[in-house]
Amino acid sequence: MESEFLGWLRTRLPASPWLRLGPGDDAAILRLGAAGKADAAPADIVIATDLLTDGIDFRVGVDDSGRIGRKAMAVNLSDLAAMAAVPRAAVFSVALPRQGALELAQALYEGILPLAERYQVAIAGGDTNTWDGGLVISVTAIGEPGPGGVLTRSGARPGDAILVTGQFGGSRLGHQFDFEPRIDEALLLMERYQLHAGLDCSDGLARDLARICQASGCGAEIVLEEVPVAEAAVKWSAQQADGISPLEHALHDGEDFELILAVPPAAAASILAEAPLAAPVTQIGRFVSERGLWQIDRDSNRTVLSAKGWEH
Amino acid sequence: MESEFLGWLRTRLPASPWLRLGPGDDAAILRLGAAGKADAAPADIVIATDLLTDGIDFRVGVDDSGRIGRKAMAVNLSDLAAMAAVPRAAVFSVALPRQGALELAQALYEGILPLAERYQVAIAGGDTNTWDGGLVISVTAIGEPGPGGVLTRSGARPGDAILVTGQFGGSRLGHQFDFEPRIDEALLLMERYQLHAGLDCSDGLARDLARICQASGCGAEIVLEEVPVAEAAVKWSAQQADGISPLEHALHDGEDFELILAVPPAAAASILAEAPLAAPVTQIGRFVSERGLWQIDRDSNRTVLSAKGWEH
Repeated sequence: MESEFLGWLRTRLPASPWLRLGPGDDAAILRLGAAGKADAAPADIVIATDLLTDGIDFRVGVDDSGRIGRKAMAVNLSDLAAMAAVPRAAVFSVALPRQGALELAQALYEGILPLAERYQVAIAGGDTNTWDGGLVISVTAIGEPGPGGVLTRSGARPGDAILVTGQFGGSRLGHQFDFEPRIDEALLLMERYQLHAGLDCSDGLARDLARICQASGCGAEIVLEEVPVAEAAVKWSAQQADGISPLEHALHDGEDFELILAVPPAAAASILAEAPLAAPVTQIGRFVSERGLWQIDRDSNRTVLSAKGWEH
Repeated sequence: MESEFLGWLRTRLPASPWLRLGPGDDAAILRLGAAGKADAAPADIVIATDLLTDGIDFRVGVDDSGRIGRKAMAVNLSDLAAMAAVPRAAVFSVALPRQGALELAQALYEGILPLAERYQVAIAGGDTNTWDGGLVISVTAIGEPGPGGVLTRSGARPGDAILVTGQFGGSRLGHQFDFEPRIDEALLLMERYQLHAGLDCSDGLARDLARICQASGCGAEIVLEEVPVAEAAVKWSAQQADGISPLEHALHDGEDFELILAVPPAAAASILAEAPLAAPVTQIGRFVSERGLWQIDRDSNRTVLSAKGWEH
């Protein structure tokens, strides 16, 4: 529904002098401070927003409330990481079920506050409501471009390496709550190396890779054996016993919140050789001029890779 | 619930170097652009956020969807008006009931877009979700301080006049959806006159006046006969036939979204004499050093005015 809606909305939105980058990326970029003030230098701010609902992003009464709160904050910080932005502040709004509302609001913050402190994110406000429905959490995170500038989805070029941080798949076994937003990693890579494009993987490796391709006007091919499959994907596949392999979970589960990057070959070689991050970085393929997503199996067969990830 | 929660939260939030004004006012003020950049001048941004839920702020299936969308945007712009900020952008997130989600999302925007255009607010993004619950709308609006600087709740002084724009009461008869956020009025008054404090009345004239008093460390007395009672309050009172007078509706209904201002006597006299706004401005009383809210009736009896407005 969301992609259809966004397509419709884009045709309706008027242009804005303050909007450097509008809807469609992980975050928007506003240029403020320039209007009507001769003495003020313009400042860019980066704005990400995510809304989480009970039954979709978490389960009240099943998942720990602190972890739910943490997740709501972390997914927004992950969006800022995808832009190589430095987080500065967040506003945190909730619709709380009436029963036990105060206790739930407090418990959410037990997970929010440590993350806010870790990344020096000011809690700038929010709106706390009770109602007859289930828990809804809406967070807007605000950051500034990091020293290396901002990273968007649209700069990938044929020949660029596809680099990913961490591992993929099985996020439902805990990673969806406990992941660390790749803020530090994105800032370091963006400052030291030439990156062409990037995002954070929330809806599945294949689907999100397709988004970079779409925004950049190119295609991508993945070498399946290179995809770093999380142990949790193996465990989850065994538990579910539904014939979906760990690799398929890695390609399509989503909520990995790892970076997917388009990096020119020389820079990619440097990153892989220097291994500047504590997290692993893996090259899983490359961007190509032919539109579409392709997978190369162990027998070097090249076939279409369909994006089955999460559709909102 | 919300005030209790905010009291708890304030004791837990760490200080932040970016936060000029934190939770508790109509909007927060962030100071960005100064960290680690010797050549950049700091820029203040003003951030307001409101979350609206079905059954509380609107009724899906009863209220027109475009008016619901408009309201969600307008209450946030009203918060920026309360700070005398110039709106620049907003992000707009929704949790939509699955049935007819796309149509509902589009219908909401029929009310959002004209308001965004009117105030040059860039729609910078959002998050569009479907779920098994009711409609929830979360908006975060971002502005910049206007040429006269920002207005907060905390500067009222004993002797200041209480000025209000427009009329009060009966907002449920339509005003809660159709009100015009007092952006232009706040900017003009703030630039031309000395204002000490202000907010936009969302939870009831009495309750919101009490908030200025609490933030400023003073009290206030209202001359009941001076309160501008909306025609809708008279109509609503007659319709309800529950013994609640139009004046009581004006004092306690909420969702008037008019400005309540603390203005030094000389400036107040100028505003009343010059009448610089298209909207009416009325003095309804004054701030006093004695803590509390007081009402003065037509026989000059001074009694306690209790704040019965909306508690979230």
